[in-house]
Amino acid sequence: MTEPLSPDRLRKLDAFILELSAEAATVTLPAFRADTAVENKGGHAFDPVTQADRGAEAAIRRLIAQRFPDHGVIGEEYGADRADADHVWVIDPIDGTSAFVAGLPLWTTLIALRFQGSPVLGVIGQPYLREFYVGSTALGSRLVTPDGERRLEVRMCDGLAQAAITTTDPHLFNRAELEAWTAVRQAARLARLGCDAYAYAMVALGRIDLVVESGLKAWDVEAAVPVIEGAGGLLTDWTGQRLGRGGGRVAAAGDPRILRDALPILRRA
Amino acid sequence: MTEPLSPDRLRKLDAFILELSAEAATVTLPAFRADTAVENKGGHAFDPVTQADRGAEAAIRRLIAQRFPDHGVIGEEYGADRADADHVWVIDPIDGTSAFVAGLPLWTTLIALRFQGSPVLGVIGQPYLREFYVGSTALGSRLVTPDGERRLEVRMCDGLAQAAITTTDPHLFNRAELEAWTAVRQAARLARLGCDAYAYAMVALGRIDLVVESGLKAWDVEAAVPVIEGAGGLLTDWTGQRLGRGGGRVAAAGDPRILRDALPILRRA
Repeated sequence: MTEPLSPDRLRKLDAFILELSAEAATVTLPAFRADTAVENKGGHAFDPVTQADRGAEAAIRRLIAQRFPDHGVIGEEYGADRADADHVWVIDPIDGTSAFVAGLPLWTTLIALRFQGSPVLGVIGQPYLREFYVGSTALGSRLVTPDGERRLEVRMCDGLAQAAITTTDPHLFNRAELEAWTAVRQAARLARLGCDAYAYAMVALGRIDLVVESGLKAWDVEAAVPVIEGAGGLLTDWTGQRLGRGGGRVAAAGDPRILRDALPILRRA
Repeated sequence: MTEPLSPDRLRKLDAFILELSAEAATVTLPAFRADTAVENKGGHAFDPVTQADRGAEAAIRRLIAQRFPDHGVIGEEYGADRADADHVWVIDPIDGTSAFVAGLPLWTTLIALRFQGSPVLGVIGQPYLREFYVGSTALGSRLVTPDGERRLEVRMCDGLAQAAITTTDPHLFNRAELEAWTAVRQAARLARLGCDAYAYAMVALGRIDLVVESGLKAWDVEAAVPVIEGAGGLLTDWTGQRLGRGGGRVAAAGDPRILRDALPILRRA
């Protein structure tokens, strides 16, 4: 066991993760809402989303290899390199590809840094909105935009009955999960669909109180862990275990009282 | 029967509808993502969304009353005035209030102008994105942003199997409607949830091929009729009748071949 990351070191990596986000945006943003007349003809000859997805991950990997050749990388598009290194970057170049295809500016570029196995730094970036939600459990979280920065803080919420909740698409749940989600939804104040990982940014911003997802991969959610924890919130699996690395079934909340109400329902699934 | 609106007259009203959108934005935008610590405590003492909703409609109504005192107005918040006038403005100051509450920039301000009973001019405005989708069936549609304007055009799509489709929330359907939606979804290439009226803008922009909704009021959809028709698309009810004024069950498509495939399924509901 080596030493934990020093605040100084974390700040340097924080600057670098924003650099990675900006690099990815040079690939994703020109492809967003670009002419895709061909795309709709079926077949797989030319798929601009997949091209942007791969191009963005390749760009991120190039920059990491230049700057930190001994770091590991796990990405959705190109798999794992040195996955047991001390530092491992976990990347989803375009989370929410269907939002991307449909022209909706809710897709995000997700980048997490694992240190000795645990995500310690993350960014949820939406370059069309010019919003970069960046955070670390140790140093806190902030929203970075061209107009400046603001501290991110989850909001307090008395319980599920007062909560605004979300999942991306109930269709992604299996039958038991769908029943649990439906029961949680009935107990909540307000439900909203179709956010993908942008929902985690809204938890950190104090606008959404609970996100419920299942079947996630590491790159779908690890970036959200430091961002939400740094804003004062928490992520667990559906049994209430704190989420570390990995994905699966996830509940992300601003206030622990929401999990107190929601987890007994989710546990049934 | 009086004469139809001349192109000159329509252009003047087109400039005015953008003025109305800008006026509404002065009320909605400051309230979006504003501090709402109180909101979450339950009760109805202070509800910033409702306040923004009402304030925006009141601002729109004031401007119409000043400029066109003989025009009628139908709004979600303040009801109908002179609903049988030659010119009637149909207003939803904040469509997608749950998106607004959840911090998601997909809520819109919808303004339609009915002339002699039919919507002839409309705008779908998203001021946080600085996007105003404005159109008329007669003169065409365009996207107005601070960076300039571009013509809106739906995309061609061979049929439902190639289509990107959307509905806001399947929970809003009754049982028969849900069965029909589910069958349409199974036949489509890609489905996306949670867009509200922003989905119509994405049809006009050529990114979404089909929107399916039910239980709509006039102010939920009339603004979309000129915007989509002016971009080359079409809106019908679920039996295939062209949508005029009013709401109900709506299918909005970029390419008629999608309705050819989807309507036989929707008609079962």
